[in-house]
Amino acid sequence: MKNIFEDESSQTYREKLWSILNSQSIFHQSKQPLTIDEYKRLTYLRCKELIRLNLLTDDELYENPRRKIILEQCLAMYDSSCHAKYSLHTTVFCETIRKLGTQRHAYLLDLEKSEKIFGCFALTELSHGSNTKEMRTIAVYDPQTQEFVLNTPDIEAMKFWIGNLGYHATHAIVYAQLYTKNVCHGLHLFIVPVRDPLTYKTFDGVKVGDIGAKCGWNGLDNGFLILRNYRIPRENLLNKHGDVLPDGTYQTHFKSSNKRFGASLGALSSGRVGISSLAIGLLIKCITIAVRYSCVRKQFGPSSGIELPIIEYQTQNWRLVPIVASLYIYRYLAVSVFDNLTEFYALSMSSDESDRDLLSDMGREIHALSCTAKALCTWNTQKAVQECREACGGHGYLYASGFGVIRDDNDPSCTFEGDNNVLLQQGANYILAVYEDIHRKNLVSNSPFHSVDFIEDLKKILEKNQCSITSECYIQDLLGAFDWLLCYAIDKSIRKLERLSLMKNLSTFDVKNTTQVYHLRTVSILYIQRTAIERFAKFLRESAGIDEPCKTVLEKLLLVHILKLFEEHLAILFEGNYIRNTHVNQWMQTRLLQLCDELRNEIVVLVDVFAPPDYILNSVLGNSDGRVYEAISQMIHSNKTTFEIPSWIKRDLIEKSKL
Amino acid sequence: MKNIFEDESSQTYREKLWSILNSQSIFHQSKQPLTIDEYKRLTYLRCKELIRLNLLTDDELYENPRRKIILEQCLAMYDSSCHAKYSLHTTVFCETIRKLGTQRHAYLLDLEKSEKIFGCFALTELSHGSNTKEMRTIAVYDPQTQEFVLNTPDIEAMKFWIGNLGYHATHAIVYAQLYTKNVCHGLHLFIVPVRDPLTYKTFDGVKVGDIGAKCGWNGLDNGFLILRNYRIPRENLLNKHGDVLPDGTYQTHFKSSNKRFGASLGALSSGRVGISSLAIGLLIKCITIAVRYSCVRKQFGPSSGIELPIIEYQTQNWRLVPIVASLYIYRYLAVSVFDNLTEFYALSMSSDESDRDLLSDMGREIHALSCTAKALCTWNTQKAVQECREACGGHGYLYASGFGVIRDDNDPSCTFEGDNNVLLQQGANYILAVYEDIHRKNLVSNSPFHSVDFIEDLKKILEKNQCSITSECYIQDLLGAFDWLLCYAIDKSIRKLERLSLMKNLSTFDVKNTTQVYHLRTVSILYIQRTAIERFAKFLRESAGIDEPCKTVLEKLLLVHILKLFEEHLAILFEGNYIRNTHVNQWMQTRLLQLCDELRNEIVVLVDVFAPPDYILNSVLGNSDGRVYEAISQMIHSNKTTFEIPSWIKRDLIEKSKL
Repeated sequence: MKNIFEDESSQTYREKLWSILNSQSIFHQSKQPLTIDEYKRLTYLRCKELIRLNLLTDDELYENPRRKIILEQCLAMYDSSCHAKYSLHTTVFCETIRKLGTQRHAYLLDLEKSEKIFGCFALTELSHGSNTKEMRTIAVYDPQTQEFVLNTPDIEAMKFWIGNLGYHATHAIVYAQLYTKNVCHGLHLFIVPVRDPLTYKTFDGVKVGDIGAKCGWNGLDNGFLILRNYRIPRENLLNKHGDVLPDGTYQTHFKSSNKRFGASLGALSSGRVGISSLAIGLLIKCITIAVRYSCVRKQFGPSSGIELPIIEYQTQNWRLVPIVASLYIYRYLAVSVFDNLTEFYALSMSSDESDRDLLSDMGREIHALSCTAKALCTWNTQKAVQECREACGGHGYLYASGFGVIRDDNDPSCTFEGDNNVLLQQGANYILAVYEDIHRKNLVSNSPFHSVDFIEDLKKILEKNQCSITSECYIQDLLGAFDWLLCYAIDKSIRKLERLSLMKNLSTFDVKNTTQVYHLRTVSILYIQRTAIERFAKFLRESAGIDEPCKTVLEKLLLVHILKLFEEHLAILFEGNYIRNTHVNQWMQTRLLQLCDELRNEIVVLVDVFAPPDYILNSVLGNSDGRVYEAISQMIHSNKTTFEIPSWIKRDLIEKSKL
Repeated sequence: MKNIFEDESSQTYREKLWSILNSQSIFHQSKQPLTIDEYKRLTYLRCKELIRLNLLTDDELYENPRRKIILEQCLAMYDSSCHAKYSLHTTVFCETIRKLGTQRHAYLLDLEKSEKIFGCFALTELSHGSNTKEMRTIAVYDPQTQEFVLNTPDIEAMKFWIGNLGYHATHAIVYAQLYTKNVCHGLHLFIVPVRDPLTYKTFDGVKVGDIGAKCGWNGLDNGFLILRNYRIPRENLLNKHGDVLPDGTYQTHFKSSNKRFGASLGALSSGRVGISSLAIGLLIKCITIAVRYSCVRKQFGPSSGIELPIIEYQTQNWRLVPIVASLYIYRYLAVSVFDNLTEFYALSMSSDESDRDLLSDMGREIHALSCTAKALCTWNTQKAVQECREACGGHGYLYASGFGVIRDDNDPSCTFEGDNNVLLQQGANYILAVYEDIHRKNLVSNSPFHSVDFIEDLKKILEKNQCSITSECYIQDLLGAFDWLLCYAIDKSIRKLERLSLMKNLSTFDVKNTTQVYHLRTVSILYIQRTAIERFAKFLRESAGIDEPCKTVLEKLLLVHILKLFEEHLAILFEGNYIRNTHVNQWMQTRLLQLCDELRNEIVVLVDVFAPPDYILNSVLGNSDGRVYEAISQMIHSNKTTFEIPSWIKRDLIEKSKL
């Protein structure tokens, strides 16, 4: 099964990473929480060691681009703080300089290589996150000294949440509104030295520090930055897309400020694609633990003294099998969106003029895919962790079960690089635009990654409003129903938008705002869910190398997943009069329970396909040998404080004895 | 509005508790996480101080029984660890001795009063939680020495998770299988001294320690206990319901071992009722924070430079208003179930023989209500915290937002005193039993708390399968639809049970097991949801003192809540052919959005009704003055380590400077 989903080179690379993380004691993890100080110290040291190890060379990446997300996923499964510290520096900081800087910034990459500087990426401010354009830090060009003067207008504009800035970074890439000759040219990126690399003292005009504890990721130092008349050389502007000449003249080859700004946010798009993979990594961890534990834990049974493994219970099985199914389908989705992104990057490096249109089509499709897939995958994992933790009963609440950390690790992904609900709007906007192109402007559909090909047939699909689902619940019939569902939601949204547009008292903004819930928001969710199941179905249809037993199981997983999705959406099928036979709901329920039952005996093998080694899983409930109680017993016996009388009780006893 | 939901004496008591928690520095809370050691030390001291303060005298309790859950709720809102440590000792340990002990155990309560001993309640074992009957610790009576010899057969049978046992308790109430004259009489409770109160050394034969960190509640010391041939006097058996005479003869006034065991688990029932209130307390906290923040936080807007408070966005509003509605409806449910329990206890203290049947009817109804309400309330809060945390975007992930702690505090409630999915079975079992009584045995319905009165009319309700819902969505029509829904689910379950019972290869156990999902589980959920909305609707109908503006708002909240519930269940209404008009779904959606919109301007006032003081809320995002950014800025500036260069970086710099 492993070979179906990952080529040999990827598998080998993954194994190599696991073995590196097992080879050095600095990487070994505890079964008890560290103090924040100790966690930060370890993360600092681990990150330095990972950089030193040079885990992904340019050649390796070129040979197999997927190594990039394998690396990210493995590190995130190992420890989210460590992954974040590492990738914020190596990927976000260094890549941004490479992509948006020019020759004059090459010296920074040299300094980085010799470990003389450490970087961070300072976009968000205290009062602005999602609305990136409104960041308020300002950089005013002074032609007299050929410097930019940076200022944080007030506390709300302080840079905030900046990973690596808390105590570690020497340099920040700061987004600030560029002013020259009294004109604001919008947000630009500046290299801002914040700490002296030799002494770690902050420079005059720079106030920088750690924002304190978070709900997780506490090995990472998130920081804030306040700038007061802080001067940096003109050359510190990352000037690939826009530059200021010594005399203060502004230059850019972009036609609009919006387009230039869009290009400067490139790092965020690839970030979102990465996040989906992190969420999948954490999903693998939590479902592996819950499945293994459920096969070992026994409770109740047909008669006194005889107890059954809890996986034998219908409810438990029905809670876990659909999560396993979602892992297979969404893992495939995340990988496929990454492949799309790779293709997009590859094309963007070709300088062929004829590719311009294709590139632009790819760009907007990858934007919609990455935003919605990120929302779908992170939410799915967040719900799954909670379900898995509860499915393990009380022991799931042990720190050493691992669930608390997994949940806290995935949690920020639901809001960063865009809150999921905000990101979903990107999907709907894209669909509306494509709809407009095809059905209003009579343009040809351009969906290089095929996620919106169906819009061309939207009207035909809507006309086929005859539900063909039978009690067998064939995948083809369900896919057909899903197509109809999505088209119906699009059509419903467009009709509402049109209706509202006619109302004089509503602005365009109001119209969009009041067409989100049950309309555009639903469209986005259905769009990415459909993309996920379509891609998986296509993969099963077209992959010749899958043997029959595997294929049967994978088809069952797909079916489980689709049936589970329909649970949320069935009312719409009734509303739209697509389903007229009232038995369909029961057919689906019966089929789903039947499939869960059939998959019960495969479930351990199915999680083992993706499960990491025990030392990465790091859960007393999830070891591959199934020895749960021994692992818990060993854990309590190896804690130093298990049998200790606390000092404050001793003190109390002494007080009492004096009386 | 406050006066509608709480009498003056309750309000005064609540205010008194808040002011106590504000009056002493020992109770003050940090905006940054404590180390586990420091947290445990503080919890120990706080708990001692709370006991010393004697927060609820018998007279106060008698005068107004609700003070009991107000106390529990306030303490849990303040700090879950502190609440647990306090109530496990004062309520669970002491109450159990009072209820299940006899005169010979009175000395323990005296020792407790003079603070000489501290207690815990040791039921669960490493490999047994929900299935209480199968606990394996054994107590063999030795008539020669008139002692019980206690043993833990193997590591799986060690007592585990026992709150207060980690380092603090001197005495444990241990559940063990009682053997005398080679006969096992089932689980009994024993007073087991585990540590010498003068030295805190453990006794020979006792191995006791702390189980280590949890995902939360880390101020509490959960412990484990292993007993090896540990002897305790015969008198240490809590002998109210069963006793062993000096010669080893076993005596009980109960007819069956099951009934005796049932009586000994009384503490758990009242525990479950308490948990619902804790979940409501935490719900108050999270929705208060999210609502206040959403009114202050601005992002995006109709044009550049003009930004709207995020509550103005349809999606944000639709995420939060239904949570506010659930607070009102479930808070009322939790209080009403507590009142039912109080009535039950009051009656059980009367020794009137004629009350026996009523008492038994009350007993089984309160069991069903407490189990299902606990599941409903804890799940609702768990989902709400996640939604609220995400609704606050990135800042919701700050530790100082409070969401992480609230989520971790509520989380164990989803599985303790019975995993929610397991507890739900109790509701369905009760309904099946009542159905059997009425429709098979022709007995009269006995539902002292009226939650299953409808079963008598089940057939009539099912016959009224004409949906009367209009686009106005009148509450009466929706309540009617909910009644039908519940009856339909019961009928469907009974038909499935009957069908499966005819199959020869299925045992009774199998039949029940395969009728859970989409059947009995659904019945339980619908049962308690219906109880909640029925009780709130009745309250609105019958409370004369509510002025019209308040009543209108409360009716809207009820309507929001019911409409939200129908989102989950609508497919069943279609399936059962109850809804034939396909517009109903859209009517409900439109009405819900309209109500959310209408309630937008009331939402702050609505959370303020129940909001605790700022020092209890303890969130930089939720202060009542709305000064979010100032609070965050103050928080980072008051952290000691904000501007510190960590020691390990200094060390690195020194190393580098030597090169």
